[in-house]
Amino acid sequence: MSLLVVGSVAFDAIQTPFHEAERVLGGAATYFAVAASFFTPVNLVGVVGDDFTEKDAAIFRGRRIDTRGLERAPGKTFFWAGRYSADFVDRTTLATELNVFANFNPRLPEAYRTTPYIFLANIDPTLQRSVLQQVRRPPKLVALDTMNYWIERTPEELRETLKHVHILMINDSETRQLSSEHNLLRAAAKIFQMGPRTLVIKRGEFGALLVHETSVFAIPGFPLEEVQDPTGAGDCFAGGFMGYLAGVGRVNQQTLRRAMVYGSVMGSFTCERFGPDRLRALTRRKINARARNFSKLTQFKL
Amino acid sequence: MSLLVVGSVAFDAIQTPFHEAERVLGGAATYFAVAASFFTPVNLVGVVGDDFTEKDAAIFRGRRIDTRGLERAPGKTFFWAGRYSADFVDRTTLATELNVFANFNPRLPEAYRTTPYIFLANIDPTLQRSVLQQVRRPPKLVALDTMNYWIERTPEELRETLKHVHILMINDSETRQLSSEHNLLRAAAKIFQMGPRTLVIKRGEFGALLVHETSVFAIPGFPLEEVQDPTGAGDCFAGGFMGYLAGVGRVNQQTLRRAMVYGSVMGSFTCERFGPDRLRALTRRKINARARNFSKLTQFKL
Repeated sequence: MSLLVVGSVAFDAIQTPFHEAERVLGGAATYFAVAASFFTPVNLVGVVGDDFTEKDAAIFRGRRIDTRGLERAPGKTFFWAGRYSADFVDRTTLATELNVFANFNPRLPEAYRTTPYIFLANIDPTLQRSVLQQVRRPPKLVALDTMNYWIERTPEELRETLKHVHILMINDSETRQLSSEHNLLRAAAKIFQMGPRTLVIKRGEFGALLVHETSVFAIPGFPLEEVQDPTGAGDCFAGGFMGYLAGVGRVNQQTLRRAMVYGSVMGSFTCERFGPDRLRALTRRKINARARNFSKLTQFKL
Repeated sequence: MSLLVVGSVAFDAIQTPFHEAERVLGGAATYFAVAASFFTPVNLVGVVGDDFTEKDAAIFRGRRIDTRGLERAPGKTFFWAGRYSADFVDRTTLATELNVFANFNPRLPEAYRTTPYIFLANIDPTLQRSVLQQVRRPPKLVALDTMNYWIERTPEELRETLKHVHILMINDSETRQLSSEHNLLRAAAKIFQMGPRTLVIKRGEFGALLVHETSVFAIPGFPLEEVQDPTGAGDCFAGGFMGYLAGVGRVNQQTLRRAMVYGSVMGSFTCERFGPDRLRALTRRKINARARNFSKLTQFKL
């Protein structure tokens, strides 16, 4: 089944201990869409400026990504600059220039309005809700990402939007902040009162946790020999997760667990090269091979 | 098969957000021995002062723990005082008084000298080596814990001791420090040059990683609803891990993976109550039930 993603398309300036670049294609919706497209057709909604070239757009071509929802606006594309510490543990934001993203008002092309699977990447919760209002048919699954900025600045808007969301996908500290609860299992119980019935907690190199109704599933991070750039790993996780679910078209305990594995696989791949470069060279065969390796990495018999 | 542990027996003063106490039985060898005794007979070597009462020793009684190697020396027992932050993320050491532990010179009773499984808890690497010199028959398996103090202060003694060790069990930061390598897989390859063929990296609430020859196994932490006191969790992990291996008497890929699970289970239990209280009330039946829950928590089929 098809999958809608609404979020940022950006240019990133990235400094890592090994490499730096001034203008790398980035943004949550970019990483998400490319990762998800290995599993299912993707409908992309975002905005770029007039500095966004055909060459930049090439990453979406030859994939099952519909870019009719990628609006072009006069001005510059959203720009983010960041620097990683020597061990990749800390990331410092050096610049954030919203540019055309400041006036982003997501509009779904007619053909997108019955997409059954929806991912609302991290943007203003009011805009996230406006996406759901444009849908013509109750979606099968809505997942949402957010961040500390919205949890602090627009808590009521976020709460209102969460009422319409099945799966919340955030990191540890966002989970704790949103729930005012340090313990992650208790935090999940509080978040379930807000609307979502499923919580996916992304923990970077430490893996991820799925709390779904009364069941908990935990996976470690996939240990990598080579980490070049963690930018976009969380969005690739979300893309693999939602892409897998939309691809199989069933949401249950078993498919959710597999989705966690594919999410983790996609997150691990993108770290191996700079920007989205690893995704460009990826195939479904390599993804499946790593999923099998993930299985070998984690499975045991008592 | 029986299991020898050499390490500290201590009194701890612990402050957590929920509770504090001035004199709680602690020490690596205490936690290790009690955790391991659920799986196999344990021979304990350590030293206590004349303030160590029959009541304190009660934790070892009624278990398969031989305390003939627990020396009594004039003076006070090793004392450690620490405080946890509100979220248990940080631990501050408030006091360390070595007392009788300052002159600890481990002596193995005759009956211990053919113990096939050996765990050298975190003490001076020269003393760890002296334990191995007292053994009459090549041990089946030697595992060792250490810490940043010895990695920094006595690197050559530690290197010499590591030549005689099969399994090194340390945390992330110790792994990085010992190998001068941030990436954990590359760190493992460097550590394998030093002697051990197996590395167990303990990552607290984030689980643990086993690197054994060319194979990697990763487990997440067991998510707990209630964390009262993480003191001794790493030692309980080691106790469950080594206790399980000694209990089955076979070291291979499959038993090592199960040992990781039992280690994680024992580490998780002790966090649920203050000091070693949770261990006192534990049964093998409860341990097995949690291991099955651990399996449910982590298993998936592709």
